[in-house]
Amino acid sequence: MTAIQDSYPDDLAWCYGCGRLNPAGHHFRTFWENEGTVTRFTPSKDHIAVPGFVSGGILAALVDCHATGTAAWAAYRADGREPGTPPPHRFVTASLRVDYLKPTPLGPELIARGSSTSVSGRKVTVTYTVEVAGVVTVRGEAVCVEIPEPMRPRAP
Amino acid sequence: MTAIQDSYPDDLAWCYGCGRLNPAGHHFRTFWENEGTVTRFTPSKDHIAVPGFVSGGILAALVDCHATGTAAWAAYRADGREPGTPPPHRFVTASLRVDYLKPTPLGPELIARGSSTSVSGRKVTVTYTVEVAGVVTVRGEAVCVEIPEPMRPRAP
Repeated sequence: MTAIQDSYPDDLAWCYGCGRLNPAGHHFRTFWENEGTVTRFTPSKDHIAVPGFVSGGILAALVDCHATGTAAWAAYRADGREPGTPPPHRFVTASLRVDYLKPTPLGPELIARGSSTSVSGRKVTVTYTVEVAGVVTVRGEAVCVEIPEPMRPRAP
Repeated sequence: MTAIQDSYPDDLAWCYGCGRLNPAGHHFRTFWENEGTVTRFTPSKDHIAVPGFVSGGILAALVDCHATGTAAWAAYRADGREPGTPPPHRFVTASLRVDYLKPTPLGPELIARGSSTSVSGRKVTVTYTVEVAGVVTVRGEAVCVEIPEPMRPRAP
């Protein structure tokens, strides 16, 4: 099964959250499943807020990359083509909202689920939740945009 | 100079973002300076979004801990007492918004600045910016609440 991050061009695949080429990163991977996106991640014992619970910063990092991955999936689907076919879609986050509904226990796998609520030109709006052991503990919304020209790597 | 995180009780000082006792964490430290809060952080070479720019997830993690630290500073000041005097204030984030105004270059120190816009019972609302080399690249707002009972460590 292909993750959207597998379709990111090599020079845009270094994200600390989801870049497959970043050796120190989290390697979040976002799949299309049943008409929406899914990113699974099991935090390490270090990813604590207070003992027993997941850090809000790690949860924000997860939904950030999950949102840009969801935006890319939505853009390919709006185009009627498969991820990896040219030209590549690669989104970054313009605005992120994270509502921490309840504490997220540390230990079990986290499951982020997402869907796009609008695809308009270079902009995709995404909503998401994070659940753990069947309970939704986080929800939010992000506005993602195709990577702007100043962030594109320069030819060497 | 005292960082607010120095005042967190030992059993609440393990946060991956700002816990002084988490050996793997970022060790964000938030100071009171000139009527507001400041958290300085120099990202590592791994904290990439795309080459040359800081990951949105790292920026979100920074403002998350910066916001809870700002909330604790504001609560002590509203009480008219110094951080570290009992009882301790320790906030967590209920809602986080991060607007990425422009790409944040990777390399220079990041400076998060914050202030509280309301202190009401157990809830503090905080606004913040992040600047790099004198340019504000991120702004946002967080609602922080005193740590809820289910997140408090149990006596052994």
